[in-house]
Parts: sequence; C-alpha cells; structure tokens
Amino acid sequence: MVTPMDPTSAAFMLAENRNQPMHVGGLQLFRRPDDAGRTFVRDFYQDMIQERELSPLFLKRPQRSLATAGQWVWTEDTQFDIEHHVRHSGLPKPGRVRELLELCSRLHGTRLAPERPLWEATVIEGLRDGRMAMYTKMHHALVDGVSSMRLLQSVLSTDPDRREMPPPWAVQPAARGVAPEPASTDHHLADLPASAFRQALGITADAAGIAGALARTVSRGVRNETSALSFYAPRTILNTNITGSRRFAAQDWPIERLRGVGKATGTTINDVVLAMVSGAMRTYLTELGALPDTGLVAMVPVGLNAKQAQNASVDGGNAVGAVMVKLGTDLADPADRLRAVHRSMTDGKEALGTMTPLQILAMSAIGLAPAVLPPLLRMSGFTRPPFNLIISNVPGPRVPHYYNGAELVGMYPLSIPIHGMALNITCTSYAGRMGFGLTGCRRTVPRLQLLLAHLDHELSALECAAGL
Amino acid sequence: MVTPMDPTSAAFMLAENRNQPMHVGGLQLFRRPDDAGRTFVRDFYQDMIQERELSPLFLKRPQRSLATAGQWVWTEDTQFDIEHHVRHSGLPKPGRVRELLELCSRLHGTRLAPERPLWEATVIEGLRDGRMAMYTKMHHALVDGVSSMRLLQSVLSTDPDRREMPPPWAVQPAARGVAPEPASTDHHLADLPASAFRQALGITADAAGIAGALARTVSRGVRNETSALSFYAPRTILNTNITGSRRFAAQDWPIERLRGVGKATGTTINDVVLAMVSGAMRTYLTELGALPDTGLVAMVPVGLNAKQAQNASVDGGNAVGAVMVKLGTDLADPADRLRAVHRSMTDGKEALGTMTPLQILAMSAIGLAPAVLPPLLRMSGFTRPPFNLIISNVPGPRVPHYYNGAELVGMYPLSIPIHGMALNITCTSYAGRMGFGLTGCRRTVPRLQLLLAHLDHELSALECAAGL
Repeated sequence: MVTPMDPTSAAFMLAENRNQPMHVGGLQLFRRPDDAGRTFVRDFYQDMIQERELSPLFLKRPQRSLATAGQWVWTEDTQFDIEHHVRHSGLPKPGRVRELLELCSRLHGTRLAPERPLWEATVIEGLRDGRMAMYTKMHHALVDGVSSMRLLQSVLSTDPDRREMPPPWAVQPAARGVAPEPASTDHHLADLPASAFRQALGITADAAGIAGALARTVSRGVRNETSALSFYAPRTILNTNITGSRRFAAQDWPIERLRGVGKATGTTINDVVLAMVSGAMRTYLTELGALPDTGLVAMVPVGLNAKQAQNASVDGGNAVGAVMVKLGTDLADPADRLRAVHRSMTDGKEALGTMTPLQILAMSAIGLAPAVLPPLLRMSGFTRPPFNLIISNVPGPRVPHYYNGAELVGMYPLSIPIHGMALNITCTSYAGRMGFGLTGCRRTVPRLQLLLAHLDHELSALECAAGL
Repeated sequence: MVTPMDPTSAAFMLAENRNQPMHVGGLQLFRRPDDAGRTFVRDFYQDMIQERELSPLFLKRPQRSLATAGQWVWTEDTQFDIEHHVRHSGLPKPGRVRELLELCSRLHGTRLAPERPLWEATVIEGLRDGRMAMYTKMHHALVDGVSSMRLLQSVLSTDPDRREMPPPWAVQPAARGVAPEPASTDHHLADLPASAFRQALGITADAAGIAGALARTVSRGVRNETSALSFYAPRTILNTNITGSRRFAAQDWPIERLRGVGKATGTTINDVVLAMVSGAMRTYLTELGALPDTGLVAMVPVGLNAKQAQNASVDGGNAVGAVMVKLGTDLADPADRLRAVHRSMTDGKEALGTMTPLQILAMSAIGLAPAVLPPLLRMSGFTRPPFNLIISNVPGPRVPHYYNGAELVGMYPLSIPIHGMALNITCTSYAGRMGFGLTGCRRTVPRLQLLLAHLDHELSALECAAGL
C-alpha cells in the first residue's frame, strides 16, 4: 500500500545528506529493579523483539522511484525485520558514562538505512554502575523530535510493579480502537504527551501548518521584530558548515540547585540554565582562542515551561514564542552574565507573539527547527548569523517513571545540527533533575564534552556569586 | 580526483540492494598478551584510529551523479572520518561466543554507507574468556573477499614481541615506494598473500579478466561438462530468494582430528570437511522436514589446497577447478556419506580444467562468485538449481601470527549469500585448526547456528565410523 508523504516529511527526506542526517534521538537511562537477575537486560531485550502488532508508523518506509514519478511516498515494509531495528549492545570497559556517550555519538552520526522503516532502538548494557540505557533514533520525516520524546515517555508508568508493558513501537492497548479526538489548538501543556502521541500515531497532523507558523515566527525573531533590542549575533565557529561526525554529551544537575540560585538572585530556573550555558561557552571558546568580542546570541523557545511549577520562565498564561537572548559571554563575571540573560529574556518576552504550546514545542532543536532554519539562514541580507545556537528547555515528567520495573533515572534528547548551526543544547527536566543534552558536529565543535565540566563549574560559580 | 570504476566493481555496486548487500567480512579472534593491562583493548583501539597515512583504497568512495553521466566512479573522501570506519564495541553479558556471533550477524547484515569509503572495522571486547575480536567489512567493489582476507593477514607477524605494527588500512612501511611487480599468472599459492595484497593496493588488477574466466569455468561446472557424472541438484530451501537478514555462525576443530579420519578411511581432509557438512545438513534439513530424496550438490572450488601439506585434496600439480560434489545427504550412514563424497570428488577432479590459483581463490563464496553466479543461476533451461550451496576451503597460515603482541587464535570469513544461494560455508585452516564460517539469510535458513552442533556431532560420528 502506497500513501503520499506530507510536504514537511518530504522536505526532510530531500534535505538529508551525509553531513546532515535528519533524525532525532533520545537517550534514556534506567536502573534495574532490585530483584533483577543476571539475565535481566537480555530478557528485557528479548521481550522487546518478540512478535507483536506494530504501529503502522514503525512499519512504513520511504520510497521514491520512477513509479512514484520521483516523489517520496510511504510504503509498508513487507520484509520488516525487528532485529534490524531493535539491537542489544554492550559497552567497552571500563563502562563509564564516557563510553556510553561515545556509543551514542556514533549511533547518532550514522544515517538510517533509507530502504527500511526509519527508526532504530539500541538496548545498552555494560555501564559499571549497573544501569542500563536505551538509545532511540527516529527520522524526522517519520515524527518530529518532540513527539518522539513524548512517544518514548508515553509507554512508561508511575507504577514500579507494572509488568508486560509493550515497547513504544507496539500498538498500545489503550490506543486500540480509540478514534482520534478532534484537533484542538488551545490545549494545555499538560495535555501534550497524549495529544503529541496521538499525533505521532495519527500521522495526518497539521505539520505543514505548524511549519508555516514556525517559519513566520522564527523569521520575525531573526529579524528582531519581536524584540525591543536590535542586534545581530557575532560570527563564531558554531556558525559554519558542518560535517557528518557527531558528538553527544549529557549530564544532569539537581533542579534544587538551579532554583536556589534563581531565588537568591530574583531570576528564573530558565535564566540559570542560560547563564550556565553562557559561562560554559565563554570558557570553552576562550580556551580555543575563539571568543568573539560581542556576546553570543541564543534562540530560546520559551513558554515550554508554562504552568510547570519547577520551571517558571513564563509566569502563567499562554504568551509564548522565541526569544533572541544575549548570553553575555563578553562579560567576565558570572553574576553579570546571569543579570544580562535575565534582562534579555525579560525584554524579549514583552514582545512575544502568540503561538500554541505545540507550535512552541515544535520550534525546539529536536522539533521542526531543522526544517525551517536552513532557508532562513540562507536568507540574503545577513552578513552575520542571526543567532549562534539554539537552547531549548523541554519539561518532562516530575515524578519517577518505570518501564517493566526498571526506573527511568535520566533522559536526554539528541538533536539535529545543521549547516550554520553546529551545536544544539536541549534541556529536559525529570524527577527533580535538569538534564542537558549537547549535540554537535565533532569537527566544527571540537572536544564538545569539555562543556559538561564547564557547565558544572559555572553552576558552582553562580551559587558562589549568589552567596550560597 | 575522480577515477573510473572497473566494470566488475561497478557490477557489484549495481547488483547491491537491501536483500543482497555486497560486502565480505572477516572475524578475527585474538588472545591478549600475558602482560596486557586493564586498558589493553582501549589502547589497541586508540592506536588503530590515530592519525596516519592511509592507503588510497581506504579513502576512496563511490559516486554516481549527473556529473558522471550516471556512471559509478571513485572519488577521494575529503571528509574522511576514521571514527566512522573503525569502531569499538562491547558484548552484552554473558559474553559467550553466541553474543559475538549475534553482533557479527547484525554488522554483516547492515549495508555500508554508500557515501563514504566502503569499509568498516569493529574492535570487540567483552568475551568472558578474555579474548578480543575484530570484525572487518569491505565492499566487494573495493576488493574481492580473498584479497580482503589476505590483506588482514598481511599485517600480522609471527613475532609475538613486535609492536607498533600498523593496521591494515595504513600505508604499510614495506609497501612504500615499492613499484608493483609485473603481473604473473603462474605464481604458487605461497606467493598469494603478497600478490593479492599488492593487487588490493594496486587496484588496477585484472579483475574483469578473472571474472570472465571464472564465469566460463563455473558455467562449465554448472552444465556438468567438467564431470563424468550427469546430474542436477534437488530443490531445497536454500535455493530461493533471500532477504537482507543475516546469520553468521563459526567454530573450529583440530585439523588433527580430520586428518585422523582421513588416514583411517583413505580420504582427504577436504573430503572429511565435506562429509561433516553433508551429515550436518542432513540432520538440519531432516529436523525441518525439508530433506530432499536425492542428495544435495555442492560447488566446491578445489586446488586451493595444492602444496599445502595439511590439505591434500589436490595431490600436487596445478590442476585446479570447481567440482560439483554429490554430498550423499540421502544416505543414512556417516561412512557411506564420506565414501560418496570421496568418490564424487575423485571423479570430478579427473575432468578438471586449468585455472590459475588466483582464479580459483577468486571463485570461492568470498571471492568473485557473488558477481558471476547470479546471471548463471538465472540462465534459462534450468528447472532445478545447478547446485545447492558453495563450500570453499581456503588455507591460512600454519603457524601462530600476532598483531602488536595479541595472538591471532581464530579467523573466519563472512561471505555473500545471493538469491538462489542462501547459505555459504567457507573453511579456513589456521595454526592447526580448521575454522568453519557459515553465512546465510536468517529467514531462508532458520536457526543456522544449529549447524555448528551438527558439524561437531558429525565429526564424532565419522571418527566412530573410522574406528577411532
């Protein structure tokens, strides 16, 4: 059966090349249940690949030929092989997080086989602390990154004793026979996991519409029409052509520490996140001898955190959009940088347009941004990049979740670097911790993993500056 | 720099599709040196990916576009990324050979990225017996399987104390500045590693010529013109269309045991190899309820073993060719099957044509056979398959070899199944052991790994029948 591919998905297929693989990823860390036996991970994996009914999303593959008049279409994979898509790997010794991140970097730097359904999942064991991990990869033509993250979350449960839970690619018991609800554009963020999940399985979606709205908003942001400030970003090493080599780094910190800094300084948790990135980037670029004289500018989708108690970047309401934030990397003092970020955010938010939460979610680096940005970045008239990097902050569940008894203890999205935008930083909160996921081109952004130590150092410096 | 691709290589690029990836593989097992520290494998890997001069063979990638008028050409990869090609993996627990074979099956079932140089190597740790492994994969358009095996061997040394040995993809110190010797077609087998290696690096080669000669010889074999016997092979599950899923199984046995059976029964080691396969296939097909009434026929390239003392299948001389061997799978008694194989080989060899050793090597399932067989298998006039499977026996080094202090303790080639020929068995002798490598389509040849136990059982049965 052949079905047409919507224009946004087709655009992702066409935009893909060796240097710009168009898939998003997710890294999930799990703690084994206390009663786990020696074969727990193997059994966990074996259960995942057992025969079951799969969602159509995970069975369709892209096709383009003379028969389709050169157009991309979806067709069902009649030779679907679950063992190609779901894999079981071990880590080399000594099994530190470093080895895990190296594996994720490699997996994320490899293109999906275009003749098969566009997804993979790898169950990873061998972390010396006994945790296990799952890296999941989905092509952006199949599902946007946010829906992908929500999809992974949607199969989890808050009940540690629940078992026989199906994997994300299976038809979910709850979803069977349920007609999709009418599309709504004014739902609250709390509704998003379910609706995004429906969208992921419903496929039709209004992705094209979102992309258009997104393009208009980003364009406004890029032209500084949304901001009282008028400025452009400096040239940096981040804003050049990239290669296909990827480096992924991830780490998390207690949200309590970020909240502490925010309370003591009258700033938000999101401000503290941005100040951490600012200080880390300043140190990183200084060491490379590549720090520009003027401060870096980040595109920050805001409103993601509305009504999420632990992230108060938008104080209630539905006013959301993208803010161009001056990170203050030209300032030597951590407290000055935090103040600069806070002021820039405050100014920027005053001029925000309105978008639905789903559109804002879609704007992040794991969302539709990779589809919308390239033409904007190529727009004539820019002698300097409109901004230097994207920093997104996507809220996740606040309480611990479990999958067949294994507790999810961390999750980090892997995004899509593109030409002109070699580094993305995507944060997710989960169960009291703020996880940072850094995805970059390994050659354009050398030794990207150093940023983790710099982020850690910067949080301490901010605490010190706040008198904590 | 763009260079044309020779017709044989181009044929491999064109023949490749999802169900028939056209790469050969090699699995090498190493024992760590006695003084190896905890970081031995990591250091081993790090050394392999350090910057050094690479052979042009490992830097070129295939390209086909409007600019090349739709023809396949070679072009140098200007963004070569060694970390994409050379990887470091761990095995899941419990780290048995089973987990290693599962990883190799998966790696061998995945196509090489066509936009990059067509090779990969994976350093594998995590075997519970402490050994480490290397799986290497090269596209058949780059180098034929035999040259690939020889290339891997050529960098080894008999000296356990030698260090700072370069990996196979580096420009070898000995090769630098040495002009290629004039082509010779009458060299002895002992010369092959060096000449095949030169061929691999020299590229030009007479591959097209070999393919032609090979096609004529195989065609003769297929038409039974080389044999006094006139028969065709039965239909079996092995002779149908295949999928892209691969299963690889490997194991080795002491050559002394095979020699013992041969001496006691007046047969050759190669006869015993074929009888082991015969008995194993009989048991395997019987369990599936798929054993044909008439015996299976194997295409067996012979002469590979000439002048190799431990493999006396051809008694001196240069008379070599492909023999269609009746395996006697219709016979219930192991001794009867061995006798049938021996008689079939003896009859077949009497009618052999002449080919050079290199041509014979090239005929094996890891050689040019995957290029030559498909058109032959499609030849009109055959209502039944001309033969059921390919069994090759390629001699390797007789004494232990080392790579930077690590002893090579086993090596097994992974070949290319094609439509109509779902299973290949390639044996290699090394340091007193006969290694069997079985490569098949996982769906056409279900539970292929069972054949290992059947092979083991059959060797015992043959010893018993021989009164040992």
